[in-house]
Amino acid sequence: MAEKRVIDPWGSVLVEDYNKIINQFGLEAFDSNMFPNPNKVMRRGTVFAGRDFKVIADCIKNKKPFYALTGIVPSADRIHFGNSIGVSNLRYFQEHGAKTYMLVADLEASAARGVSLEESRRRALEFHIPAYIALGLDPKKTVFYFQSENIDVMRLSYDFSKHVTLNEFKAVYGNADPSRIASSLAQMGDMLYPQLEEKMPGIIPVGVDQDPHIRLTRDVIARTKEKYGFAPLASMYHKFTPSLDGGLKMSKSKPSSMVELPEDESLLRKKMKATKTGGRETIEEQKRIGGEPEKCIVFELYKQHLIEDDKDLDSVYQRCKAGKLLCKEDKQSCSDLIVNFMQDFNKKVEQARKIVPKLKFVRF
Amino acid sequence: MAEKRVIDPWGSVLVEDYNKIINQFGLEAFDSNMFPNPNKVMRRGTVFAGRDFKVIADCIKNKKPFYALTGIVPSADRIHFGNSIGVSNLRYFQEHGAKTYMLVADLEASAARGVSLEESRRRALEFHIPAYIALGLDPKKTVFYFQSENIDVMRLSYDFSKHVTLNEFKAVYGNADPSRIASSLAQMGDMLYPQLEEKMPGIIPVGVDQDPHIRLTRDVIARTKEKYGFAPLASMYHKFTPSLDGGLKMSKSKPSSMVELPEDESLLRKKMKATKTGGRETIEEQKRIGGEPEKCIVFELYKQHLIEDDKDLDSVYQRCKAGKLLCKEDKQSCSDLIVNFMQDFNKKVEQARKIVPKLKFVRF
Repeated sequence: MAEKRVIDPWGSVLVEDYNKIINQFGLEAFDSNMFPNPNKVMRRGTVFAGRDFKVIADCIKNKKPFYALTGIVPSADRIHFGNSIGVSNLRYFQEHGAKTYMLVADLEASAARGVSLEESRRRALEFHIPAYIALGLDPKKTVFYFQSENIDVMRLSYDFSKHVTLNEFKAVYGNADPSRIASSLAQMGDMLYPQLEEKMPGIIPVGVDQDPHIRLTRDVIARTKEKYGFAPLASMYHKFTPSLDGGLKMSKSKPSSMVELPEDESLLRKKMKATKTGGRETIEEQKRIGGEPEKCIVFELYKQHLIEDDKDLDSVYQRCKAGKLLCKEDKQSCSDLIVNFMQDFNKKVEQARKIVPKLKFVRF
Repeated sequence: MAEKRVIDPWGSVLVEDYNKIINQFGLEAFDSNMFPNPNKVMRRGTVFAGRDFKVIADCIKNKKPFYALTGIVPSADRIHFGNSIGVSNLRYFQEHGAKTYMLVADLEASAARGVSLEESRRRALEFHIPAYIALGLDPKKTVFYFQSENIDVMRLSYDFSKHVTLNEFKAVYGNADPSRIASSLAQMGDMLYPQLEEKMPGIIPVGVDQDPHIRLTRDVIARTKEKYGFAPLASMYHKFTPSLDGGLKMSKSKPSSMVELPEDESLLRKKMKATKTGGRETIEEQKRIGGEPEKCIVFELYKQHLIEDDKDLDSVYQRCKAGKLLCKEDKQSCSDLIVNFMQDFNKKVEQARKIVPKLKFVRF
C-alpha cells in the first residue's frame, strides 16, 4: 500500500510539492487554455488543480446554467492576501455566467472558533461582505446567506449523514470527531444547496486544503442520485499565498507571516523589510549572477496579487534574473504597490458598506 | 468490569427485568406519591423509573414554570396501544402546569425510515396530531413544530456536536454511525429548544429505550453551563405495552403483536382470541386454583389502557385469582372495551382533524 497522506482543512498544512498532491489525490491538473480569458492566477499556475473542469468549461462555452459558491468563516475582523485569490476566482466565474453564492459560515465559526452567531453576523456585514465586494464580487449578482439561517442546508446535512460512513470521515479527515462530522455535513449541504432550486453543475473555487469536503460531497452526489439527482460538483484549487518568511502559507496564527487586509502602512513596510527574497549573499554577487525570483516571496506577491499585466510581470522577472533589480529597491516598489492596493481596497470597502443594507439575503 | 448493556433506542429491545435496568443505568425508581393525582399508569407501576423527579414535583408543588415534551416519528399512518402511554403522561404534566411541546420528527422519519418530509407532514397533520388530541392532549396549550422547520433546533445540534465525543456516542448507542450521531444531536436540540425562550426545567415522558438520548443531553447541559445555563432535564420512563403473544413490547414489524389505533374490529377480535393469558391448562383447573393475572396480557391491557378505576381493576384481578373469571369470557369483555375505546378514539380523531388547520405551529 502506498503511504496515505491526509490534507487537514482545519489545521496548517505543510505541502511542498503541489504535483505530489495532484497525484496523491487524483486531481486534474489545471490547464488555463480550457477557459476563456483566464484571470492572472489562472494564467500563472496559482490555480493548479481541480475536479471536473470540463463540465464547467462546457457550461461557459454553451452558456448553460451553473453556479459558483464560496463560504467565509468570519473568525476575525480582517482577511489576508491569501484569502483574496478565492475571491478573484469566484469573480471570474461570476463574470462568465455563474449564479454566485456567498455564504457566511457562522455555525462553523461558532463551533470551531467560539465566535457567537451575533458576532459573526456583525463581522460579516461590517467587513467580510464589503471586502468581497471591494475585491470585485458583484453584489447584485450574488446570493448571500447565513449558514445558521438556512434550514435547507441543515435538512440536507441531516439527510447526508446516512450516506457517509464513520470510517470514511476518519479516512478523509484523519479523525471523526462529532463536531468535525457536523461541520463536514453542513459544508456538503452548503455546496449542494443551490441545486435545490435548479439542478445545474457547480464549481467551488478554493484552497486545495478544502478538497476533502469536495471529495465527500461528490461521493454523496453519486449515492443520492435517485433521491436528488444532483448535477456534478466541480472544484478549482489554488496554491496558498506563501508566508512572508517563505513558509507554505500565510497563517493567522503568525501575524508577521501575512499581508493583512486592511493593514497599517508602517507595520506593512516593516514586515516587507523582513520578507524572504531570492536575493544573493552580497549585492556584488547578485549584480553578477542575478536573483532567483522563483524563490522570492516578493515576486510571488506580484504574481498572485499585485501585477495584472503578464508583460509587466515578465519585465520584473527578467530584470531580477539579469541582476538589474536589487532586493531593497524591489521591496520598496512592492510595498508601494501594496499600499496603493490597500488604499484602493479601503476606499472600496467603505463604499461597499453602504450597499450592504440593501443586499438581499436569502430568508428562510 | 461489570458487563455493560446497551439500550438501543432504534432497534427492538428485549428487556426482561425492569429493576435490572434501574440498577444498570442508575435510574431513580418512580414513586407515585411524589406527584399529585397520579394517572393510572403512574399509579400502577407502568411508569417505573426516571431521572430528577423531584425537580418536576417541586415545580408542580410551587407552581413554577416547567415544560414537558414529546416527539412523534410519523413512520406509519397509525399508532399502537403502546404509544398512547406516553401521551397520557404528557397530558398529566400538561394538566399540572407544564408548557407542552409536541414535535414531529420528520427529519428522523426521513433519515431512518425513508419517509419524505411531505409524507411526514401529511401523516402528522391527518393522523398523529389528531390522534394525540383524541387521547387527551389540549391543542390550545400545546406548541407544535416540525423538526425540519426548526432552525433553532438545528443550530443547537450543530453546537452540541462539540460537546460529545465519538467514544461517548459509541458507548451509549453501541455504534457511532454518522446518521445516528446526527439523529442524537437533533434530539438533544429538540429537548432543550424550549429553553431558548425561557430557562426552566423540563421533563420527557417516554419509553425507557429513550434513556440514552436523555443521558447525553443531561451531560451536554452540564458541559454548556456557561454558554447556555440550561435548567435540568428530567425524564419519566414507562414500561412497554407487551406484545399480545407475551413478548416484551408491541412491535410494528409484527402486526399480530399489536392493538393498533385505529384497527378493524373483526381483525382485533381475531388477534384477541390468540392473545396470551394467565389461564390454566383446563377450565376445571382454572376454576379450582384460579388464573394468573400477573402473566396475563389481557390484564395488562386493562391495567395500562382500558380500566380507569383502581377498584374496577382490582375486582377483575380478584375474580381471576378466584377462578371466577375465565379467559374466554374475559377476552370477550376486553375486546368489547377495546372496540368501545376505538369507536370513541375514531370519533375524537375526526373532531380533532377539524381543529388542526387552526393550530398554531411554530414558524421559523
